[in-house]
Amino acid sequence: MEQVAVIGAGSWGTALAMVLAHNGHDVRVWSHRESQVEEINSKHINSKYLPNVELPSNLVAYSDMQKAIEGAKAILLVVPTKAIREVCRQLRPFITNGQTVIHASKGIEPETHKRISEMIADELGDEVNNRLVVLSGPSHAEEVALKQPTTVTVSSYNMDAAEVAQDLFMNEHFRVYTNDDVVGVEIGGALKNIIALGAGISDGLGYGDNAKAALITRGLAEIARLGTKLDANPLTFAGLTGVGDLIVTCTSQHSRNWRAGNMLGKGYVLQDVLDQMGMVVEGVRTTKAAYQLAQKLDIPMPITEGLYELLFDEKDPKQVVDELMNRGKTKELEDLNSFL
Amino acid sequence: MEQVAVIGAGSWGTALAMVLAHNGHDVRVWSHRESQVEEINSKHINSKYLPNVELPSNLVAYSDMQKAIEGAKAILLVVPTKAIREVCRQLRPFITNGQTVIHASKGIEPETHKRISEMIADELGDEVNNRLVVLSGPSHAEEVALKQPTTVTVSSYNMDAAEVAQDLFMNEHFRVYTNDDVVGVEIGGALKNIIALGAGISDGLGYGDNAKAALITRGLAEIARLGTKLDANPLTFAGLTGVGDLIVTCTSQHSRNWRAGNMLGKGYVLQDVLDQMGMVVEGVRTTKAAYQLAQKLDIPMPITEGLYELLFDEKDPKQVVDELMNRGKTKELEDLNSFL
Repeated sequence: MEQVAVIGAGSWGTALAMVLAHNGHDVRVWSHRESQVEEINSKHINSKYLPNVELPSNLVAYSDMQKAIEGAKAILLVVPTKAIREVCRQLRPFITNGQTVIHASKGIEPETHKRISEMIADELGDEVNNRLVVLSGPSHAEEVALKQPTTVTVSSYNMDAAEVAQDLFMNEHFRVYTNDDVVGVEIGGALKNIIALGAGISDGLGYGDNAKAALITRGLAEIARLGTKLDANPLTFAGLTGVGDLIVTCTSQHSRNWRAGNMLGKGYVLQDVLDQMGMVVEGVRTTKAAYQLAQKLDIPMPITEGLYELLFDEKDPKQVVDELMNRGKTKELEDLNSFL
Repeated sequence: MEQVAVIGAGSWGTALAMVLAHNGHDVRVWSHRESQVEEINSKHINSKYLPNVELPSNLVAYSDMQKAIEGAKAILLVVPTKAIREVCRQLRPFITNGQTVIHASKGIEPETHKRISEMIADELGDEVNNRLVVLSGPSHAEEVALKQPTTVTVSSYNMDAAEVAQDLFMNEHFRVYTNDDVVGVEIGGALKNIIALGAGISDGLGYGDNAKAALITRGLAEIARLGTKLDANPLTFAGLTGVGDLIVTCTSQHSRNWRAGNMLGKGYVLQDVLDQMGMVVEGVRTTKAAYQLAQKLDIPMPITEGLYELLFDEKDPKQVVDELMNRGKTKELEDLNSFL
């Protein structure tokens, strides 16, 4: 059994910490909130993020970063995109070369258009790439916490590092595939949140499953278009971190991005939606980053463009969806060719 | 405006007839049931298959095949797979060379492993291939009847024929893409019903969205594996008739195949499920056909094999799903490579 640090005690960090603890590892969860550390250690619950779930006794919380990671074989980062750099700066004085760094965050940095692993390498140094792993896939935290069957992918430039992550997490409920396409896994994980906002908007407008399936399918094509331009392997978008994660995020009311979109479709304005959610809605930031990236690389991404206009130019949701449905007659395979 | 015959007055045939009628065409729906013909013509409803929807007055029903198709520019076939040959034999004496034949049925013939268009060509002669079109995509009949936004693909070996179909059906609610991969469109449409049964079983067992997303993703990979072996274009499986139709069939309770699977997951035996459904469940016949085809062509299709054992060898549903989750450690991209 190993010692593993989990940086971030939101719902996904806590659920992944539970998988590690279930596998018998000594799990140290770091949170910057003293009250959360106290609650986890004294009551064995994380009431804000995973209510109604009892945390195992080999999962202990820390507010001291050094103590949380000291002696850990691997460090799992699960914080919002905008907190990644700050957390890495706090890690930097204490982290050692032998420690595998796994991240399970999903987003693209708006200003730089960098992926999470690029942000981590900026802060911890390029040599981290050799022991850096991204964990992603179709996985609601709530279901993982309840030991519902779940599959994820661990991807790394170094397959030995990916296998370290696979061995730490894999069990009879939680199936872990390895993959060497870091770019494709990170792009799929980030951009699915844009399509989930769109799916929520379509549902919020009262449109049905046919419209949503069309949006998801065309959304997958535009994600793959951007990804392959950035040198991702197109096959990755047909896998768990591409279509799999897209499906789970777009069709389930567990998804924050879907819920935010649903409120937008019902006529709420963006700021009210964000205020009411109370948690980070990654899709909003990611829409801006992907829109800028698509412009820069000259990639047609009509769904992303429509959502950008809706979120940041106050375009009417119904008009955005109706325009997406009513472009000219199209030959499907020509349109999908840019997929590969 | 054109005259169009619709052969088959189930829910999908009636919904497609409504699209044609909405576009101003003179629509003649054929049914072998006199009572249904009478109900459509006198009350303008189809109470068994599309209750609560009023049919337009330019949609008229016939029980006489010759009268239904005489003078029609196009003939749309929408009958269960097992009725395709018989209906074609009834059409054969009356059909003329100028008439485009469009089918919107989904399945594979168990005994011969033939696709629908191959069955049609067997019965109407190979020369029909030049004017034969398949219409498929993510489309619940109930939503189409309510003019909810919907996208479909029309595929043909002859793009002129596909464009005839596109022009007949396209309108502001119903977006039609052309595609030249008949094999891929038919294989995707048929095999998604197998995965929908599996998704229903997973839900019926009480498993969550994570498990279902994994099943859909792995299901898409095995459909693509069989399809490309049969010379389909792999891109088709990333499109509306592949992943799009798979999503809508697996995540919506409108789907008969999902509902049948759901009952199986809850412990009902197959014959009771089929008796209670009262409509054809294509996925059951298709599972047998695809299982035989996979054996013959030596293609690994673990989900199809598991469902075959469940349906025809009375294997326990939970055991089937758990075995699918607990195969050995896998490298995702190697597994997906056979996708292309």
